[in-house]
Amino acid sequence: MKIENPNPIQWHFAERAQKLQSSVIREILKITMRPEIISFAGGLPSPATFPVERMKAAFDTVLSNNGKVALQYGPTDGYLPLREWVANSLSIDGATISPEQVLMVSGSQQGLDLLGKVLIDEGSKVLVETPSYLGALQAFSVYGPEFVSIPTDDSGLLPEAVGSVGAGARLLYALPNFQNPTGRTLSLERRVALVDTCARLGLPLIEDDPYGSLSYNGAPLPKMLTMNPNGVIYMGSFSKVLTPGIRLGYVVAPQPLVRKLEQAKQATDLHTAQLTQMVVHEVIKDGFLAEHIPIIRALYADRCAAMLAALTEFFPAEVSWTKPEGGMFIWVTLPQHIDSMALLDEAIAQNVAFVPGAPFYANDPQHNTLRLSFVTVTPERIREGVAKLGKLIAAKL
Amino acid sequence: MKIENPNPIQWHFAERAQKLQSSVIREILKITMRPEIISFAGGLPSPATFPVERMKAAFDTVLSNNGKVALQYGPTDGYLPLREWVANSLSIDGATISPEQVLMVSGSQQGLDLLGKVLIDEGSKVLVETPSYLGALQAFSVYGPEFVSIPTDDSGLLPEAVGSVGAGARLLYALPNFQNPTGRTLSLERRVALVDTCARLGLPLIEDDPYGSLSYNGAPLPKMLTMNPNGVIYMGSFSKVLTPGIRLGYVVAPQPLVRKLEQAKQATDLHTAQLTQMVVHEVIKDGFLAEHIPIIRALYADRCAAMLAALTEFFPAEVSWTKPEGGMFIWVTLPQHIDSMALLDEAIAQNVAFVPGAPFYANDPQHNTLRLSFVTVTPERIREGVAKLGKLIAAKL
Repeated sequence: MKIENPNPIQWHFAERAQKLQSSVIREILKITMRPEIISFAGGLPSPATFPVERMKAAFDTVLSNNGKVALQYGPTDGYLPLREWVANSLSIDGATISPEQVLMVSGSQQGLDLLGKVLIDEGSKVLVETPSYLGALQAFSVYGPEFVSIPTDDSGLLPEAVGSVGAGARLLYALPNFQNPTGRTLSLERRVALVDTCARLGLPLIEDDPYGSLSYNGAPLPKMLTMNPNGVIYMGSFSKVLTPGIRLGYVVAPQPLVRKLEQAKQATDLHTAQLTQMVVHEVIKDGFLAEHIPIIRALYADRCAAMLAALTEFFPAEVSWTKPEGGMFIWVTLPQHIDSMALLDEAIAQNVAFVPGAPFYANDPQHNTLRLSFVTVTPERIREGVAKLGKLIAAKL
Repeated sequence: MKIENPNPIQWHFAERAQKLQSSVIREILKITMRPEIISFAGGLPSPATFPVERMKAAFDTVLSNNGKVALQYGPTDGYLPLREWVANSLSIDGATISPEQVLMVSGSQQGLDLLGKVLIDEGSKVLVETPSYLGALQAFSVYGPEFVSIPTDDSGLLPEAVGSVGAGARLLYALPNFQNPTGRTLSLERRVALVDTCARLGLPLIEDDPYGSLSYNGAPLPKMLTMNPNGVIYMGSFSKVLTPGIRLGYVVAPQPLVRKLEQAKQATDLHTAQLTQMVVHEVIKDGFLAEHIPIIRALYADRCAAMLAALTEFFPAEVSWTKPEGGMFIWVTLPQHIDSMALLDEAIAQNVAFVPGAPFYANDPQHNTLRLSFVTVTPERIREGVAKLGKLIAAKL
């Protein structure tokens, strides 16, 4: 029943599909899966923190008590008790968030895609940090925006720079806590100024907050959402505080936008797995995160300290790096003439890996930057890997 | 720390977002959740067929043996053993499908969204059946195609109609087995002619096949994929043969397209939950579907027979309907002057629900049509509901 000698298809992809390319990070990750590699490249949380037994028990409970509901199609906006949990957890510092403002999504990345789908036209102005989270740049790129890079320093992005270019933009995307890729935190003063600036401009402000609970001292800064719930779109995730493989996150947005996002989600994948949402709710409903998150914080703080110590010990004085107060990443700036992509090739030859910084820039990539992740590597191996990198860099000075 | 009196945001949605609207079906489903309603409206499989215990055991096995891998980020293309299973299951009738051609997705709906994202530009010609699956129309609509409706009869779409309008189109979307919404099957002769026509035109043919294994006599027609694996894009799903709430399906496509779809998926949601894929593989790897699917088939065949008998008994002679040989749906054509949307209001007042046919048309909606689903209703309630509908229709003649 085979068709004989059919014409080969000349694939005619959509214009937006030309903009798609595989993430540099995921390509590097393929190389660095080999066990002999000391990899600072991953954005993966440490599996040592995954509450596997707890999750297993929750799957058993949900499937035993409510299996036929958990395995059936579910509502597009998400499992109501979990939306209520999210709304409660964000109704702090004087803000009131309702469950109707919460849309459950298949990981934060889907939230970014839906926001792009609903807010970005070809040529729309979109403001991002310098550098910005690569996954957001990828998700938005598909919809053809004109990115405007907002300058930053060690206290995060500069709100006054938003004032001059923000008019008419579709959104500003910020990752205020322990940013990916830099590990920087937006200071309290700047949060207030940024929310105020965006409110004056009528500019939707996206607050992406996957690492917010991972502050090493346990005292996070106030969320921008709580300062203006009518102007801030908040994104949260269970990937970094529970496990990423279940693909579960949420977007909190003002009514007109969240209803539009819900319609977009319906056309995109109907809904996020009901079973997963019920299981996560079962795991966290009685306060599990309050005992679990400190374990993650302590582990990450320990490894961050190990890496900072190793950087001081082994990196030449011409190199600088950020000192994160939480999260998973350190950002390194090399002398101007060193290209981190070329350095990566040499590093991999010595079984060490990291992510070059250039892809994190929407405009004007700084090729002398790189991102180090420390959470999945033991302190001994951190020291060994940083020592090797330091030697390679020193040889280029 | 609240910002005082901020400007309310004037939401500026993307042009494509104007095209989004909530599915009529999902709106109706909200009404028809009340237990007193006899609902023929759902597209939901019968939860009586969900292998809950088997799934529970598989979650336990996977999390016990491989929990940290299952709960970590995974590859974008999917879990290799499951992709191998899919490739093997489709390497039939002389065709060879490789695991590299398989992309795991979060339900077929996501496959449709990714295909739209990668293949459809504003104004691209897209060919669909008359009527067509509503979810596909929704997913594609976002990308702004010009839909061309291909005429159909009781043996499915007419391949000769494709020949005259197919040149330059980006894709043809067909659901050949027990179509949603009509329950019709594309005949073997037409499959061959359609594959041949598309191959001559170099036109990508999407074969959406969620119900393919649910033929009541257990003898499905050959898949179009096997007739020309280089020109047909096949979509399968575990929603109708296992459970829909886990959101797991797959797209099988020629290399250049599947790699582009993989990039689009990465930007859209990174990957589909690894845990779910490992669990489904655990459930099906030893031949479970071969014993499970006949149970679903028998149940659905029984209920289809009950509905066909009730239609013959209670519906006026002026009404006609399809006689499905598998799947979940019967399509009803009323006399020209009866609007099924108005009929629905009267039916709901009498605690019976169905889905009006108009939204399933990309062009020129036929308002005198409706879709009946029979799989979640007992034969007694089917008889009761059809009797009520028959009376309402008779009163309009």
